[in-house]
Amino acid sequence: MRINLTTRPEPGRRSLPTLILAAALLAMSCSGDDGVRAPSDQPSTATPTMEWAIAVHGGAGSPSREMSEETRQAYEQALLGAIDLARKHLSEGGAAIDAVELVVVRLEDDERFNAGKGAVYTHDETHELDAAIMDGSDRSCGAVAGLRTVRNPIRLARLVMDRSPHVFMVGRGAEEFATEMKVKRVDNHWFDTEERLEALRRAQEKDHFGTVGAVALDQNGDLAAATSTGGLTNKRWGRVGDVPVIGAGTYADNSCCAISGTGRGEQFIRHTIARSIAALVEGEQLTLAAAAHRVFEERLDPGDGGVILVGPTGEIVLHFNTDGMYRAWANSEGDEGFAIWKDTE
Amino acid sequence: MRINLTTRPEPGRRSLPTLILAAALLAMSCSGDDGVRAPSDQPSTATPTMEWAIAVHGGAGSPSREMSEETRQAYEQALLGAIDLARKHLSEGGAAIDAVELVVVRLEDDERFNAGKGAVYTHDETHELDAAIMDGSDRSCGAVAGLRTVRNPIRLARLVMDRSPHVFMVGRGAEEFATEMKVKRVDNHWFDTEERLEALRRAQEKDHFGTVGAVALDQNGDLAAATSTGGLTNKRWGRVGDVPVIGAGTYADNSCCAISGTGRGEQFIRHTIARSIAALVEGEQLTLAAAAHRVFEERLDPGDGGVILVGPTGEIVLHFNTDGMYRAWANSEGDEGFAIWKDTE
Repeated sequence: MRINLTTRPEPGRRSLPTLILAAALLAMSCSGDDGVRAPSDQPSTATPTMEWAIAVHGGAGSPSREMSEETRQAYEQALLGAIDLARKHLSEGGAAIDAVELVVVRLEDDERFNAGKGAVYTHDETHELDAAIMDGSDRSCGAVAGLRTVRNPIRLARLVMDRSPHVFMVGRGAEEFATEMKVKRVDNHWFDTEERLEALRRAQEKDHFGTVGAVALDQNGDLAAATSTGGLTNKRWGRVGDVPVIGAGTYADNSCCAISGTGRGEQFIRHTIARSIAALVEGEQLTLAAAAHRVFEERLDPGDGGVILVGPTGEIVLHFNTDGMYRAWANSEGDEGFAIWKDTE
Repeated sequence: MRINLTTRPEPGRRSLPTLILAAALLAMSCSGDDGVRAPSDQPSTATPTMEWAIAVHGGAGSPSREMSEETRQAYEQALLGAIDLARKHLSEGGAAIDAVELVVVRLEDDERFNAGKGAVYTHDETHELDAAIMDGSDRSCGAVAGLRTVRNPIRLARLVMDRSPHVFMVGRGAEEFATEMKVKRVDNHWFDTEERLEALRRAQEKDHFGTVGAVALDQNGDLAAATSTGGLTNKRWGRVGDVPVIGAGTYADNSCCAISGTGRGEQFIRHTIARSIAALVEGEQLTLAAAAHRVFEERLDPGDGGVILVGPTGEIVLHFNTDGMYRAWANSEGDEGFAIWKDTE
């Protein structure tokens, strides 16, 4: 079981992990871990309070090591492009809740990810999309599930939060709400992509989840989380996973952290993964890294997935027990990075 | 803010609260509370380990004080009838997970409650039902939402748990699963009742929730929870409340407690009420009563609702911040009771 935060430093960019690797090496001997500790697990000198911070994920699983350099770069551009949007917004004093929505909309529109445009196929060769967003300042939230015609589910989740007395809407009813809210609609076939259809034919994309998510801290000290997904390839019976279940795949509370998860949704629901991590940070005052580590260790099986977290001082933790997780991050200190696999590239 | 467990003792039956009232009075001076403490908040002498225990609720809100004796008795018979089913099952060594299902099926078939047959009307004058069940022995669970033709939603939730690889199914897809599972189906109009139609016309039944739920401890030491509801009168847009959201309205974990909630679903989701209570019991070793009290105090507004809890030693807590909550309980020590309002009747 490793806590890893690996990176490929970009020219002219400082990498967050670089800052903490030395300290992490010191810490390794007195931890029971065989892995590199994430920054929040270090003394506060290694994690100064940031003005803002952002992290995104594009799913956890087993990305092929045979991936071409071109493909790798495309993922890097996609995630760092989303990070750039958030950086601009957050550095100008924008709200975390808007930053995570912006980022997730961007990734929903990128067919590489299993969310929005790139949503996987259900058993019936349709697409059913889920999303949730949560504002850590007051724990207000919005969640949607089983959408078939909403181009950007995260936008509808935001509207559920802002413009309805409810928190969670599903299926046909949620689509009626989309009509009232005048959000962008598409035919269900608009979500068709060659790659996902092949995945359905193989019906084997079990460990390539591709869900997208973002967590952010803004200059006001507010935290927010957003997650969006097409769910499981070949899913049936109106299956809903952890993404729209507040406390499973999505959670935010200024007092402890914002969390977005990706992985085996059933496991994340049963074990209320996001809320379990938050509870350890809140109640037992664990660091984000230690809390994520313990919850994964005690509640999940290897290969179940990953989470991204940001805390009130801007510490970022990117934790997973799969081979890899597409992820990127940045903060007001100028740190920025992108990584896929577990070990240092 | 009160923690209350009130009762109307039945002839020939010992009442659980009677056992603890004296001890509770002693405890009051050193607690910050103005209310009567629930049994789990007392020294262990007041809460011997039970072989089994069961508690049920039929919703929290503001039941009319003008209620006729006949009506009151009808509720009492309904809840104690459900308790009787559970007692027989649990005292013969049956499993908690079966007990909570049995009890909830019984209450779903009783049109007094807003679950199954008595489900409220949506804005479109249809009925959409939600339910969830959870087994504390391994945190396996099943949840369903937006059902229109399944007579007993809790049965389908159980089948999701036992017979599918999934945890949560919604809408049309969930109905297809119901077809495969051959559960009892009805036309949506089967759920029509005069009383609920009037409630829709008044569109004001805001504080009469009527959700049903059960929690149980069995002789094997396993805990389970089940909750079922027709949701909010006049609800729109495929609104889903806390009931099928694991960690909001339903949660069970042998290591701490089983919980079923009822009330303003949006509040229960935002504040992950069930999981928040469980986290305090698990992490900070609070008693069930103290944990419920703190979470309601810190996260909810007066009138938001109630929860029923059972812990590993059979302690029962029935906590609410509304005027009343229909509730009943029994355990292997022969305690049994039924109550509606907050104060002792």
